[in-house]
Amino acid sequence: MATTGKTTEPSPAAPRRAAALEWSVDNCTIASTLGILGEKWTFIVLRDVFLGIRRFDDFIEHTGIPRQVLSNRLASLVEQGLLRRESYQEPGERARSEYRLTDKGMDAYPILVALREWGDKYTCETAGPPLLTIHRDCGASVDVHLRCSAGHELTSPREVVPRPGPSARRR
Amino acid sequence: MATTGKTTEPSPAAPRRAAALEWSVDNCTIASTLGILGEKWTFIVLRDVFLGIRRFDDFIEHTGIPRQVLSNRLASLVEQGLLRRESYQEPGERARSEYRLTDKGMDAYPILVALREWGDKYTCETAGPPLLTIHRDCGASVDVHLRCSAGHELTSPREVVPRPGPSARRR
Repeated sequence: MATTGKTTEPSPAAPRRAAALEWSVDNCTIASTLGILGEKWTFIVLRDVFLGIRRFDDFIEHTGIPRQVLSNRLASLVEQGLLRRESYQEPGERARSEYRLTDKGMDAYPILVALREWGDKYTCETAGPPLLTIHRDCGASVDVHLRCSAGHELTSPREVVPRPGPSARRR
Repeated sequence: MATTGKTTEPSPAAPRRAAALEWSVDNCTIASTLGILGEKWTFIVLRDVFLGIRRFDDFIEHTGIPRQVLSNRLASLVEQGLLRRESYQEPGERARSEYRLTDKGMDAYPILVALREWGDKYTCETAGPPLLTIHRDCGASVDVHLRCSAGHELTSPREVVPRPGPSARRR
């Protein structure tokens, strides 16, 4: 749109103000989740745990994560209750810790699958994805899916709208 | 388990080695997604766009994100094709950009809903969540759901297993 200096015509409509601006994000649960998980290496460690990796040196070998970063991320995931430590001992070696998913950690799985799916669609090699998630009992692929609790099929995120919930606060 | 010095007994089983260690993560699509999205403010900006916020000053007002960080994140999301700029002009002001979701950006919606759901379960105030996502046409809540492509109901992520995909590479 060309700028023609100050216009004296009225704006065709009142400036739209997004309804979301009326609401506080102080207790946003996306932000609080990211406060716990929102760091790239944290997701990578979780990915590896979901892939069955449990041991400190195996995380290092598999991901190249720096030792101190791994140590911090594992401690944080244990402290937040997503992983638990379990002791193991190889013959002739000292006792060490393995890391296992708790239910709280297991519940983060849809986040990882959603990240993978977007990546498979937009960052993937033409050969196809490097990793599949399949249903253990039947071998069919598993994806994440937006689900209407009334059972309607959703064909686009455009059919989903945000609404203030019970703990929404005005700003 | 107590350490009793060197043991001469054989280990009861060969040390388990996670199968995932055989496979490269060089082309992992979770990692590549995080390379694009894996920074807390990026998710927060996307959240706000999904909440209907489109304008630079509105992001600042809603989130408190530092101006330079917002500027960088918006530029990156445009460059990566998740957002597009659209010009608008208020009367008597210079033309400015609004930010709208592309289809590629829209496809990140399940990631945001998955983050929200985990947060609603584990970080929420007792009053309930601050934000709901509902089906525009019927008002019922919308969540993300792991779906078996053969139609089986999945009751736990433990029923889902990883498998190497077509572009999996041995390490």
